[in-house]
Amino acid sequence: MINVAIVGASGYTGLELIKILINHPKFNITYIANSEGGVNVTDLHPSLDGVLDMDVQKANANEISKVADLAFLALPHKASMGFAKQLLALEIKVVDLSADYRLQLDTYEKHYCPHEDKENLKHSVYGLPEFYNGLIPHAKLVANPGCYPTATLLALVPFVPYIDPKSNIFIDAKSGVSGAGKKLSETTHFVNVNENIFAYNPFGHRHAPEIEEKILELTDIKANINFVPHLIPVNRGMLVSIYATLEDVCDAKQVLKDFYADDKFVRIKDEPVTIKDTSGTNYCDIFVEQNGNSIFISSSIDNLLRGASTQAVVNANLMCEYEEDLGISKIAYVP
Amino acid sequence: MINVAIVGASGYTGLELIKILINHPKFNITYIANSEGGVNVTDLHPSLDGVLDMDVQKANANEISKVADLAFLALPHKASMGFAKQLLALEIKVVDLSADYRLQLDTYEKHYCPHEDKENLKHSVYGLPEFYNGLIPHAKLVANPGCYPTATLLALVPFVPYIDPKSNIFIDAKSGVSGAGKKLSETTHFVNVNENIFAYNPFGHRHAPEIEEKILELTDIKANINFVPHLIPVNRGMLVSIYATLEDVCDAKQVLKDFYADDKFVRIKDEPVTIKDTSGTNYCDIFVEQNGNSIFISSSIDNLLRGASTQAVVNANLMCEYEEDLGISKIAYVP
Amino acid sequence: MINVAIVGASGYTGLELIKILINHPKFNITYIANSEGGVNVTDLHPSLDGVLDMDVQKANANEISKVADLAFLALPHKASMGFAKQLLALEIKVVDLSADYRLQLDTYEKHYCPHEDKENLKHSVYGLPEFYNGLIPHAKLVANPGCYPTATLLALVPFVPYIDPKSNIFIDAKSGVSGAGKKLSETTHFVNVNENIFAYNPFGHRHAPEIEEKILELTDIKANINFVPHLIPVNRGMLVSIYATLEDVCDAKQVLKDFYADDKFVRIKDEPVTIKDTSGTNYCDIFVEQNGNSIFISSSIDNLLRGASTQAVVNANLMCEYEEDLGISKIAYVP
Amino acid sequence: MINVAIVGASGYTGLELIKILINHPKFNITYIANSEGGVNVTDLHPSLDGVLDMDVQKANANEISKVADLAFLALPHKASMGFAKQLLALEIKVVDLSADYRLQLDTYEKHYCPHEDKENLKHSVYGLPEFYNGLIPHAKLVANPGCYPTATLLALVPFVPYIDPKSNIFIDAKSGVSGAGKKLSETTHFVNVNENIFAYNPFGHRHAPEIEEKILELTDIKANINFVPHLIPVNRGMLVSIYATLEDVCDAKQVLKDFYADDKFVRIKDEPVTIKDTSGTNYCDIFVEQNGNSIFISSSIDNLLRGASTQAVVNANLMCEYEEDLGISKIAYVP
Repeated sequence: MINVAIVGASGYTGLELIKILINHPKFNITYIANSEGGVNVTDLHPSLDGVLDMDVQKANANEISKVADLAFLALPHKASMGFAKQLLALEIKVVDLSADYRLQLDTYEKHYCPHEDKENLKHSVYGLPEFYNGLIPHAKLVANPGCYPTATLLALVPFVPYIDPKSNIFIDAKSGVSGAGKKLSETTHFVNVNENIFAYNPFGHRHAPEIEEKILELTDIKANINFVPHLIPVNRGMLVSIYATLEDVCDAKQVLKDFYADDKFVRIKDEPVTIKDTSGTNYCDIFVEQNGNSIFISSSIDNLLRGASTQAVVNANLMCEYEEDLGISKIAYVP
Repeated sequence: MINVAIVGASGYTGLELIKILINHPKFNITYIANSEGGVNVTDLHPSLDGVLDMDVQKANANEISKVADLAFLALPHKASMGFAKQLLALEIKVVDLSADYRLQLDTYEKHYCPHEDKENLKHSVYGLPEFYNGLIPHAKLVANPGCYPTATLLALVPFVPYIDPKSNIFIDAKSGVSGAGKKLSETTHFVNVNENIFAYNPFGHRHAPEIEEKILELTDIKANINFVPHLIPVNRGMLVSIYATLEDVCDAKQVLKDFYADDKFVRIKDEPVTIKDTSGTNYCDIFVEQNGNSIFISSSIDNLLRGASTQAVVNANLMCEYEEDLGISKIAYVP
Repeated sequence: MINVAIVGASGYTGLELIKILINHPKFNITYIANSEGGVNVTDLHPSLDGVLDMDVQKANANEISKVADLAFLALPHKASMGFAKQLLALEIKVVDLSADYRLQLDTYEKHYCPHEDKENLKHSVYGLPEFYNGLIPHAKLVANPGCYPTATLLALVPFVPYIDPKSNIFIDAKSGVSGAGKKLSETTHFVNVNENIFAYNPFGHRHAPEIEEKILELTDIKANINFVPHLIPVNRGMLVSIYATLEDVCDAKQVLKDFYADDKFVRIKDEPVTIKDTSGTNYCDIFVEQNGNSIFISSSIDNLLRGASTQAVVNANLMCEYEEDLGISKIAYVP
Repeated sequence: MINVAIVGASGYTGLELIKILINHPKFNITYIANSEGGVNVTDLHPSLDGVLDMDVQKANANEISKVADLAFLALPHKASMGFAKQLLALEIKVVDLSADYRLQLDTYEKHYCPHEDKENLKHSVYGLPEFYNGLIPHAKLVANPGCYPTATLLALVPFVPYIDPKSNIFIDAKSGVSGAGKKLSETTHFVNVNENIFAYNPFGHRHAPEIEEKILELTDIKANINFVPHLIPVNRGMLVSIYATLEDVCDAKQVLKDFYADDKFVRIKDEPVTIKDTSGTNYCDIFVEQNGNSIFISSSIDNLLRGASTQAVVNANLMCEYEEDLGISKIAYVP
């Protein structure tokens, strides 16, 4: 058994980490923290009543180093790098769910803020297991991808070599409201979202440079990414619809099947994918259709799980040399 | 006052026609029919209790000719052309909400079935008022556009001259469930739709050739249309997200403003459009954003109103030389 | 034409007042205000773009007295009585949508706060037209009922004389989220409400004493009211389920039909009522079923319209000696 | 390990049984059937792709007797008793999720149909573990309770001795749409349910006699049950609001705490219960509030789990002398 800490337990991804790790056969939760401490986990998450009775601490790296060997950080951007730096100095392995270690320095500083832990940034590994599984097992610090990049890269990367490099790639993404987090805002008010749908931050979302950078890293191709997210009136789930123009003929479905032949958590589907079939799981479902030189790729993930917390635990599994699917749910919430 | 008939009163668009025409200052409903007859409108639509007390007839063209000068047909494809033919022979003006008179003969027969009223098809006018308002006033037969083509053409046509003709145009459309009609199906079962989203008929929907044909008619340009509709868990509303590659630089927002300077039912918005702001109205809201040579155009309509019934009444207004907005709601249901 | 002011235009009921009054044949909106002013109504409510172009003022009673003869106050409790007092001193008629003038002094002060306009409170008329239509036409100040009392009293009052006075009356009410207003709270966060239902303030809601007091006024019977509201995941609509024990045998449906024989806005239904059939209207639909000496009465209203804004305009119609249904919508939003 | 069969795998409760039993440490699924057979489970339930690859058989009792020692029947009423009879003759233990063995003969025949397996009916045990845990371990046939009776009895039985026996007990129940099953109907059409709520079968639902009979069995008191179910626009979850009049003073919360002191799957809550907190689990959450001699009891369950499939597996655990919570989820789907 490996002792683990969860830092940032108040939000949705923190709750999901708790829910996964409670039943994990090899990870043992020894420390749960948020920015304030002084409550029980059931105060933060009443549904855990009867399931987990544990104090929530005010996050403290030294305390963590006494009781855990690995920490999951579900903290806001910027707060995370300050805390990760302390943990790494204490030789605690870190899976960071924020954006702080996902990007190269210049990309990060352009889209977020000055970086405060450049040294560790150099050695962080991007935690998309299908693409970085050679590096993750040796990493001390894994940067868990954003939800949009996860769903997009898994669908798009296999086709990048076939796409006309001069053409535009368009990504129309649809996210459930839990992706916006627990904080109160006009955008998350029930009456504003229910019976509604709209784009937000078109061409301006910070996940777009993350997608572009990773495609370049993985394929050596500079793709023309145009990313438009939409908010949909569901609690959880993410559907990403990608539109591109092919340069080379390909049997698109076969491309996917070959690419993911050895991967347990990607399913290639014959019918358009639904968010219901992946909700509650770590699966990414992918469907593809062609029309002349046009291609439509549709991927579905659970934004809080494959887009955050189960993927974080998969990364931890790999970092600790366990099977990647150890303790990871494959059973959807459907219906 | 002009006496009008509504044929096909059982479905959602039939109900919307009744709701609009009850309060219309110049149209007087004298005849309501469905395929069976023998009931009251309140049996079909209990919400009309206290509002309209009228028998529903078994549809009969001769009876209509005795009591009405204009008929709205909210019938299924194929059934509509048989009935319209009879009405036109009796000199009744027709606004047809089906697909039967929207397309040129060869396009229609390729995507639907053999046409049974080729003569009237030649003279039908496509009822998108912003583009065909010169022809509609003189028409005996107006073919009301589909909901997807309405939202798509209004957003896309102004930009067709600027788009790289060799590039692909991608249309990611999202429709509320009322667009699938009242009939029972797996797709409309609450549990399958709620907390879900998915594409259907990708690149295969019959509204795509309607869009292509009308763009060619209107701009003389053969556009490469790639159309993918999605079902979203809302009752009504349609959001269409269009992605294209520009050949010529343009100030996209100004293009829209100039194009629709004289139109009452198109609103150019500074923020991404929402379906909530058009739900209950005949408005089409349009937003546009650029990213290098990429363009994102987002339009919102009420699929049952601008996508069907209010647009039908606007067409009838024009056919009868009334103001186009006579009796047409501009006030959204929001919240 | 009578000039009217709307004070408190930012919230949902303010928006609904604007939507109704724009098309009212006899009321002319001359003044719209909120607590800040300095914006256009379309800034507050983007869906009014193209519909109404009017500045929003910082609320000022003297300014209102120059341009309007009647004011609708959609203000928070307590704020309302301060403002109404000024308007009444200036001889402006007032329809107040807050709780400030609904209750007798002692009831009000027990459940809300010290009253600051006791003089006008004495002369205010409770604006439930079916019960107080003799008084409303002569009133200078009408206190518009709460949404829960409206739906409850219309369903319950006809049966009070038949109910065992020693037994308990139980009211299980279900309200859409717009009833909680626009302000941000845990309770209105989409993720907390969607796919959820729960009671709140059981036996403790301030609408319970309003119901008790009005039953006593109307029937001279002290009823044992037990009121439990629930929040349901819909935008608008209210269903009230009332359970009681009869002392005297009655033909319950006939009781309702006789009671409301002359009322335009109450519909007695043969099937259990739905919120969909009243949403968008001023109707109250009522259904009743008996089981031995048990009775179940179910009523449905639109919480923002019959429960607030259309009822306010009906009251204004009566105060100005117009027909009660002048300019009031009877057509539901369905589907 | 004990081999088990699931008969009736097409519906929602069949799917839930599969999802639970896949991960159960002691039960091994050896046989899955529906009325047709000839498909894979992933054809019935695409979300099981990658999770379970198993043929679905046409249900046959002899085949089951070769491969399983216990069978779960998720069949329609009437079909179930025919099949259970065969299995019991072959010495297969049965957990029946239908109504066929829940009621005494006369109650059953009054509300359902003539009974075709009277012999086994005599020996069936009602599978509500908190109340019948003395009998379940020795049973060959357990009749799994209905969802409404489960949520109602757990909330109500502790208070029956305190309730005025001459007074009426009112049960206002709210169920998610999955309770209506997979079959297509007006009632399950998305557009009819979404943004709606209504009562159905008021005072006429067949779960009312089940509730009355079990209260009499358990407390020897004939309670006056008045049951009104409502349909709410959520996929899963059930909230039951019970209203009653107390004869004897009691500390209601303490009554609950004492009654359920030893039960793992009942949680007594300080705040009104929500369906979100039990969704995905076998928990029944209960909240109680008093107002003079009035009492309000609110209970929440997952209608498909505590109201069907996890409760069935708890019963199977007890029949096989395992811990009742073996393999049973306590972790809610929230958010």
